[in-house]
Amino acid sequence: MNYCPQCGAPVTRRIPEADDRPRFVCDTCKVIHYQNPIVVVGTIPESEGRILLCRRGIEPALNKWTLPAGYLEIGETLQQGAARETLEEAGYQIVDLKPYAITNIVRVNQVYIMFTCGLGDCVSAPGSESLEVKLFTPEEIPWQEIAFRSIHKTLKLYCTDMGRGNYPIHLFDIT
Amino acid sequence: MNYCPQCGAPVTRRIPEADDRPRFVCDTCKVIHYQNPIVVVGTIPESEGRILLCRRGIEPALNKWTLPAGYLEIGETLQQGAARETLEEAGYQIVDLKPYAITNIVRVNQVYIMFTCGLGDCVSAPGSESLEVKLFTPEEIPWQEIAFRSIHKTLKLYCTDMGRGNYPIHLFDIT
Repeated sequence: MNYCPQCGAPVTRRIPEADDRPRFVCDTCKVIHYQNPIVVVGTIPESEGRILLCRRGIEPALNKWTLPAGYLEIGETLQQGAARETLEEAGYQIVDLKPYAITNIVRVNQVYIMFTCGLGDCVSAPGSESLEVKLFTPEEIPWQEIAFRSIHKTLKLYCTDMGRGNYPIHLFDIT
Repeated sequence: MNYCPQCGAPVTRRIPEADDRPRFVCDTCKVIHYQNPIVVVGTIPESEGRILLCRRGIEPALNKWTLPAGYLEIGETLQQGAARETLEEAGYQIVDLKPYAITNIVRVNQVYIMFTCGLGDCVSAPGSESLEVKLFTPEEIPWQEIAFRSIHKTLKLYCTDMGRGNYPIHLFDIT
Protein backbone atom coordinates (compact mmCIF):
# COMPACT_ATOMS: atom_id res chain seq x y z
CA MET A 1 0.00 0.00 0.00
CA ASN A 2 1.43 3.32 -1.16
CA TYR A 3 -1.61 5.61 -1.23
CA CYS A 4 -4.64 6.09 0.99
CA PRO A 5 -7.63 4.27 -0.59
CA GLN A 6 -9.93 6.88 0.94
CA CYS A 7 -8.28 10.23 0.03
CA GLY A 8 -5.43 9.32 -2.33
CA ALA A 9 -2.63 10.90 -0.23
CA PRO A 10 0.60 8.92 0.32
CA VAL A 11 0.45 6.68 3.40
CA THR A 12 3.19 6.14 5.93
CA ARG A 13 3.95 2.94 7.80
CA ARG A 14 4.22 3.40 11.54
CA ILE A 15 2.86 2.21 14.86
CA PRO A 16 -0.30 4.21 15.64
CA GLU A 17 -0.92 5.53 19.14
CA ALA A 18 -2.29 2.81 21.46
CA ASP A 19 -1.25 0.11 19.00
CA ASP A 20 1.72 -2.25 19.08
CA ARG A 21 2.48 -2.99 15.43
CA PRO A 22 3.12 -1.00 12.26
CA ARG A 23 0.12 -0.09 10.11
CA PHE A 24 -0.43 1.92 6.96
CA VAL A 25 -1.60 5.30 8.24
CA CYS A 26 -2.92 8.29 6.29
CA ASP A 27 -1.74 11.51 7.89
CA THR A 28 -4.06 13.51 5.66
CA CYS A 29 -7.44 11.92 6.41
CA LYS A 30 -6.21 10.18 9.61
CA VAL A 31 -7.46 6.72 8.66
CA ILE A 32 -5.52 3.63 9.77
CA HIS A 33 -5.63 0.95 7.06
CA TYR A 34 -5.58 -2.44 8.74
CA GLN A 35 -4.59 -5.52 6.78
CA ASN A 36 -5.76 -8.97 7.79
CA PRO A 37 -5.54 -12.63 6.70
CA ILE A 38 -8.04 -13.85 4.12
CA VAL A 39 -10.43 -16.77 4.51
CA VAL A 40 -10.39 -19.57 1.94
CA VAL A 41 -13.48 -21.76 2.14
CA GLY A 42 -14.02 -25.14 0.52
CA THR A 43 -15.50 -28.61 0.64
CA ILE A 44 -14.65 -32.30 0.73
CA PRO A 45 -17.68 -33.62 -1.18
CA GLU A 46 -18.24 -37.35 -0.65
CA SER A 47 -20.62 -39.69 -2.41
CA GLU A 48 -20.78 -43.37 -1.48
CA GLY A 49 -17.19 -43.57 -0.32
CA ARG A 50 -15.76 -41.52 -3.15
CA ILE A 51 -14.34 -37.99 -2.89
CA LEU A 52 -14.82 -35.33 -5.53
CA LEU A 53 -11.67 -33.68 -6.85
CA CYS A 54 -11.18 -31.04 -9.54
CA ARG A 55 -8.24 -30.91 -11.93
CA ARG A 56 -7.10 -27.29 -11.97
CA GLY A 57 -7.50 -25.35 -15.20
CA ILE A 58 -5.57 -22.32 -13.96
CA GLU A 59 -2.23 -21.53 -12.40
CA PRO A 60 -0.90 -22.04 -9.81
CA ALA A 61 -0.77 -25.83 -9.92
CA LEU A 62 -2.32 -26.12 -13.38
CA ASN A 63 -3.38 -29.74 -14.09
CA LYS A 64 -3.08 -30.82 -10.46
CA TRP A 65 -6.03 -32.15 -8.47
CA THR A 66 -7.66 -30.21 -5.67
CA LEU A 67 -10.80 -29.84 -3.59
CA PRO A 68 -13.29 -27.09 -4.48
CA ALA A 69 -12.17 -23.98 -2.56
CA GLY A 70 -11.72 -20.25 -2.94
CA TYR A 71 -11.83 -16.90 -1.22
CA LEU A 72 -14.80 -16.14 0.98
CA GLU A 73 -16.62 -13.14 -0.51
CA ILE A 74 -18.14 -10.11 1.19
CA GLY A 75 -21.86 -10.73 1.78
CA GLU A 76 -21.81 -14.50 2.13
CA THR A 77 -21.55 -16.99 4.99
CA LEU A 78 -18.89 -19.70 5.04
CA GLN A 79 -21.60 -22.20 4.14
CA GLN A 80 -22.71 -20.10 1.17
CA GLY A 81 -19.10 -19.62 0.07
CA ALA A 82 -18.45 -23.37 0.29
CA ALA A 83 -21.57 -24.10 -1.78
CA ARG A 84 -20.69 -21.41 -4.34
CA GLU A 85 -17.14 -22.66 -4.81
CA THR A 86 -18.31 -26.25 -5.23
CA LEU A 87 -20.90 -25.19 -7.78
CA GLU A 88 -18.42 -22.96 -9.65
CA GLU A 89 -15.53 -25.39 -9.72
CA ALA A 90 -17.33 -28.72 -9.92
CA GLY A 91 -20.88 -27.99 -11.10
CA TYR A 92 -22.40 -29.78 -8.10
CA GLN A 93 -24.82 -28.75 -5.40
CA ILE A 94 -23.94 -29.93 -1.90
CA VAL A 95 -25.83 -31.07 1.18
CA ASP A 96 -25.17 -31.53 4.88
CA LEU A 97 -22.18 -29.18 5.34
CA LYS A 98 -20.10 -29.67 8.50
CA PRO A 99 -16.88 -27.89 9.53
CA TYR A 100 -13.95 -30.29 9.23
CA ALA A 101 -10.51 -28.70 8.83
CA ILE A 102 -9.20 -25.29 9.89
CA THR A 103 -5.75 -24.53 8.49
CA ASN A 104 -3.39 -21.62 9.03
CA ILE A 105 -1.09 -20.78 6.14
CA VAL A 106 0.63 -17.77 7.66
CA ARG A 107 3.16 -17.42 4.84
CA VAL A 108 0.41 -16.39 2.41
CA ASN A 109 -1.93 -14.79 4.99
CA GLN A 110 -4.65 -17.40 4.54
CA VAL A 111 -6.97 -19.30 6.86
CA TYR A 112 -8.62 -22.32 5.22
CA ILE A 113 -11.99 -23.52 6.49
CA MET A 114 -12.96 -26.80 4.84
CA PHE A 115 -16.33 -28.53 5.22
CA THR A 116 -17.37 -32.13 4.78
CA CYS A 117 -20.52 -32.51 2.68
CA GLY A 118 -22.58 -34.87 0.62
CA LEU A 119 -22.91 -34.46 -3.12
CA GLY A 120 -26.21 -33.15 -4.39
CA ASP A 121 -27.27 -32.80 -7.99
CA CYS A 122 -24.87 -32.05 -10.79
CA VAL A 123 -26.43 -28.90 -12.22
CA SER A 124 -23.83 -27.54 -14.63
CA ALA A 125 -20.52 -28.21 -16.27
CA PRO A 126 -17.51 -27.26 -14.12
CA GLY A 127 -16.35 -23.67 -14.60
CA SER A 128 -13.23 -22.49 -16.36
CA GLU A 129 -11.12 -23.04 -13.24
CA SER A 130 -11.47 -26.82 -13.63
CA LEU A 131 -10.39 -29.04 -16.53
CA GLU A 132 -12.08 -32.13 -15.13
CA VAL A 133 -14.11 -33.30 -12.14
CA LYS A 134 -13.89 -36.86 -10.89
CA LEU A 135 -14.81 -39.03 -7.91
CA PHE A 136 -12.01 -41.04 -6.27
CA THR A 137 -11.99 -43.76 -3.65
CA PRO A 138 -9.20 -43.16 -1.09
CA GLU A 139 -7.10 -45.80 -2.89
CA GLU A 140 -7.51 -44.05 -6.24
CA ILE A 141 -6.48 -40.54 -5.11
CA PRO A 142 -3.46 -39.35 -7.15
CA TRP A 143 -1.38 -38.31 -4.12
CA GLN A 144 1.58 -37.19 -6.22
CA GLU A 145 -0.63 -34.82 -8.20
CA ILE A 146 -2.47 -32.93 -5.44
CA ALA A 147 -2.27 -29.18 -5.94
CA PHE A 148 -1.48 -27.81 -2.47
CA ARG A 149 0.01 -29.06 0.79
CA SER A 150 -3.03 -27.91 2.76
CA ILE A 151 -5.34 -29.89 0.46
CA HIS A 152 -3.03 -32.92 0.56
CA LYS A 153 -3.08 -32.95 4.35
CA THR A 154 -6.84 -32.37 4.52
CA LEU A 155 -7.42 -35.31 2.15
CA LYS A 156 -5.07 -37.56 4.15
CA LEU A 157 -6.92 -36.74 7.37
CA TYR A 158 -10.27 -37.30 5.68
CA CYS A 159 -9.30 -40.69 4.27
CA THR A 160 -8.10 -41.78 7.72
CA ASP A 161 -11.37 -40.58 9.25
CA MET A 162 -13.38 -42.39 6.55
CA GLY A 163 -11.76 -45.62 7.71
CA ARG A 164 -12.85 -44.89 11.28
CA GLY A 165 -16.30 -43.54 10.37
CA ASN A 166 -15.64 -40.53 12.62
CA TYR A 167 -14.97 -36.98 11.43
CA PRO A 168 -13.68 -34.76 14.25
CA ILE A 169 -12.66 -31.18 13.58
CA HIS A 170 -8.97 -30.77 12.66
CA LEU A 171 -6.80 -27.71 13.24
CA PHE A 172 -3.34 -27.56 11.71
CA ASP A 173 -0.73 -25.19 10.32
CA ILE A 174 1.13 -25.33 7.02
CA THR A 175 4.60 -23.87 7.60
CA MET B 1 -12.29 2.76 -1.67
CA ASN B 2 -11.84 5.84 -3.87
CA TYR B 3 -8.18 5.63 -4.90
CA CYS B 4 -5.83 2.82 -5.89
CA PRO B 5 -3.66 1.91 -2.88
CA GLN B 6 -0.88 0.94 -5.27
CA CYS B 7 -0.64 3.91 -7.67
CA GLY B 8 -2.99 6.55 -6.22
CA ALA B 9 -5.21 6.88 -9.32
CA PRO B 10 -9.01 6.93 -8.87
CA VAL B 11 -10.56 3.45 -8.94
CA THR B 12 -13.76 2.43 -10.67
CA ARG B 13 -16.24 -0.18 -9.49
CA ARG B 14 -17.13 -2.73 -12.13
CA ILE B 15 -17.22 -6.45 -12.87
CA PRO B 16 -13.77 -7.47 -14.16
CA GLU B 17 -13.45 -9.83 -17.12
CA ALA B 18 -13.98 -13.49 -16.09
CA ASP B 19 -15.50 -12.39 -12.79
CA ASP B 20 -19.13 -12.27 -11.68
CA ARG B 21 -19.29 -9.45 -9.16
CA PRO B 22 -18.25 -5.80 -8.93
CA ARG B 23 -14.74 -5.03 -7.66
CA PHE B 24 -12.69 -1.92 -7.21
CA VAL B 25 -10.47 -1.82 -10.29
CA CYS B 26 -7.60 0.52 -11.13
CA ASP B 27 -7.59 1.29 -14.84
CA THR B 28 -4.18 2.95 -14.53
CA CYS B 29 -2.10 0.16 -12.96
CA LYS B 30 -4.65 -2.61 -13.82
CA VAL B 31 -4.85 -4.02 -10.30
CA ILE B 32 -8.13 -5.49 -9.03
CA HIS B 33 -8.58 -4.70 -5.33
CA TYR B 34 -10.49 -7.56 -3.73
CA GLN B 35 -12.23 -7.05 -0.41
CA ASN B 36 -12.96 -9.94 1.91
CA PRO B 37 -14.50 -10.71 5.32
CA ILE B 38 -12.26 -10.37 8.37
CA VAL B 39 -11.54 -13.06 10.94
CA VAL B 40 -12.19 -12.35 14.61
CA VAL B 41 -10.49 -14.86 16.89
CA GLY B 42 -11.12 -15.40 20.58
CA THR B 43 -11.38 -17.75 23.54
CA ILE B 44 -13.76 -19.17 26.12
CA PRO B 45 -11.26 -19.61 28.97
CA GLU B 46 -12.50 -21.99 31.67
CA SER B 47 -11.05 -22.74 35.07
CA GLU B 48 -12.73 -25.23 37.40
CA GLY B 49 -16.22 -24.69 36.04
CA ARG B 50 -15.92 -20.91 35.80
CA ILE B 51 -15.68 -18.87 32.59
CA LEU B 52 -13.50 -15.79 32.21
CA LEU B 53 -15.21 -12.65 30.99
CA CYS B 54 -13.87 -9.14 30.44
CA ARG B 55 -15.82 -5.94 31.06
CA ARG B 56 -15.22 -3.74 28.04
CA GLY B 57 -13.30 -0.52 28.55
CA ILE B 58 -13.95 0.78 25.04
CA GLU B 59 -16.86 1.39 22.72
CA PRO B 60 -18.82 -0.28 21.29
CA ALA B 61 -20.57 -1.90 24.24
CA LEU B 62 -18.56 -0.05 26.88
CA ASN B 63 -19.04 -1.61 30.33
CA LYS B 64 -20.61 -4.79 28.94
CA TRP B 65 -19.08 -8.22 29.49
CA THR B 66 -17.46 -10.20 26.69
CA LEU B 67 -15.05 -13.00 25.90
CA PRO B 68 -11.48 -12.12 24.88
CA ALA B 69 -11.53 -11.67 21.09
CA GLY B 70 -10.21 -9.46 18.33
CA TYR B 71 -9.06 -9.29 14.74
CA LEU B 72 -6.64 -11.93 13.53
CA GLU B 73 -3.42 -10.19 12.52
CA ILE B 74 -1.16 -10.75 9.53
CA GLY B 75 1.67 -13.10 10.51
CA GLU B 76 -0.09 -15.12 13.20
CA THR B 77 -2.06 -18.35 13.36
CA LEU B 78 -5.57 -18.49 14.81
CA GLN B 79 -4.09 -20.13 17.92
CA GLN B 80 -1.52 -17.35 18.29
CA GLY B 81 -4.20 -14.72 17.76
CA ALA B 82 -6.46 -16.33 20.36
CA ALA B 83 -3.58 -16.43 22.87
CA ARG B 84 -2.60 -12.82 22.11
CA GLU B 85 -6.12 -11.49 22.53
CA THR B 86 -6.57 -13.35 25.83
CA LEU B 87 -3.27 -12.00 27.12
CA GLU B 88 -4.01 -8.46 25.93
CA GLU B 89 -7.58 -8.26 27.18
CA ALA B 90 -7.42 -10.46 30.28
CA GLY B 91 -3.74 -10.72 31.23
CA TYR B 92 -3.88 -14.53 31.19
CA GLN B 93 -1.96 -17.19 29.35
CA ILE B 94 -4.03 -20.07 28.00
CA VAL B 95 -3.60 -23.79 27.47
CA ASP B 96 -5.22 -26.58 25.47
CA LEU B 97 -6.91 -24.56 22.71
CA LYS B 98 -9.65 -26.31 20.74
CA PRO B 99 -11.93 -24.88 18.02
CA TYR B 100 -15.46 -24.49 19.37
CA ALA B 101 -17.66 -21.93 17.60
CA ILE B 102 -17.56 -20.62 14.04
CA THR B 103 -19.90 -17.69 13.49
CA ASN B 104 -20.81 -15.73 10.38
CA ILE B 105 -21.79 -12.11 10.93
CA VAL B 106 -22.31 -11.15 7.31
CA ARG B 107 -23.73 -7.71 8.12
CA VAL B 108 -20.33 -6.55 9.41
CA ASN B 109 -18.18 -8.82 7.18
CA GLN B 110 -16.85 -10.86 10.07
CA VAL B 111 -16.17 -14.54 10.70
CA TYR B 112 -15.68 -15.39 14.39
CA ILE B 113 -13.57 -18.38 15.33
CA MET B 114 -13.78 -19.05 19.06
CA PHE B 115 -11.68 -21.61 20.95
CA THR B 116 -12.24 -23.39 24.23
CA CYS B 117 -9.19 -23.31 26.47
CA GLY B 118 -7.95 -23.71 29.98
CA LEU B 119 -6.64 -20.76 31.97
CA GLY B 120 -2.89 -20.62 32.47
CA ASP B 121 -0.99 -18.14 34.57
CA CYS B 122 -2.12 -14.59 35.11
CA VAL B 123 0.95 -12.71 33.87
CA SER B 124 -0.16 -9.09 33.65
CA ALA B 125 -2.98 -6.67 34.38
CA PRO B 126 -5.67 -6.59 31.69
CA GLY B 127 -5.00 -4.06 28.94
CA SER B 128 -6.79 -0.79 28.35
CA GLU B 129 -9.58 -2.53 26.44
CA SER B 130 -10.84 -4.15 29.67
CA LEU B 131 -12.06 -2.46 32.84
CA GLU B 132 -12.26 -5.70 34.80
CA VAL B 133 -11.70 -9.43 34.40
CA LYS B 134 -13.73 -11.95 36.36
CA LEU B 135 -14.58 -15.66 36.48
CA PHE B 136 -18.25 -16.64 36.41
CA THR B 137 -20.06 -19.91 36.96
CA PRO B 138 -22.81 -20.40 34.34
CA GLU B 139 -25.38 -19.31 36.97
CA GLU B 140 -23.48 -16.10 37.68
CA ILE B 141 -23.11 -14.90 34.07
CA PRO B 142 -24.74 -11.45 33.66
CA TRP B 143 -26.79 -12.41 30.60
CA GLN B 144 -28.42 -8.99 30.30
CA GLU B 145 -24.99 -7.34 30.14
CA ILE B 146 -23.22 -9.38 27.47
CA ALA B 147 -21.65 -7.18 24.82
CA PHE B 148 -22.53 -8.86 21.53
CA ARG B 149 -25.13 -11.32 20.24
CA SER B 150 -22.44 -13.63 18.87
CA ILE B 151 -20.76 -13.78 22.28
CA HIS B 152 -24.11 -14.25 24.04
CA LYS B 153 -24.95 -17.22 21.83
CA THR B 154 -21.46 -18.71 22.15
CA LEU B 155 -21.69 -18.50 25.95
CA LYS B 156 -25.17 -20.06 25.97
CA LEU B 157 -23.95 -22.97 23.86
CA TYR B 158 -20.89 -23.38 26.04
CA CYS B 159 -22.88 -23.44 29.28
CA THR B 160 -25.19 -26.08 27.82
CA ASP B 161 -22.18 -28.13 26.74
CA MET B 162 -20.59 -27.76 30.19
CA GLY B 163 -23.69 -29.44 31.62
CA ARG B 164 -23.24 -32.33 29.20
CA GLY B 165 -19.45 -32.51 29.48
CA ASN B 166 -19.23 -32.56 25.67
CA TYR B 167 -17.98 -29.71 23.48
CA PRO B 168 -18.78 -30.31 19.80
CA ILE B 169 -17.97 -27.70 17.19
CA HIS B 170 -20.78 -25.19 16.58
CA LEU B 171 -21.46 -23.29 13.37
CA PHE B 172 -24.06 -20.53 13.38
CA ASP B 173 -24.97 -17.22 11.76
CA ILE B 174 -25.90 -13.92 13.39
CA THR B 175 -28.43 -12.19 11.14
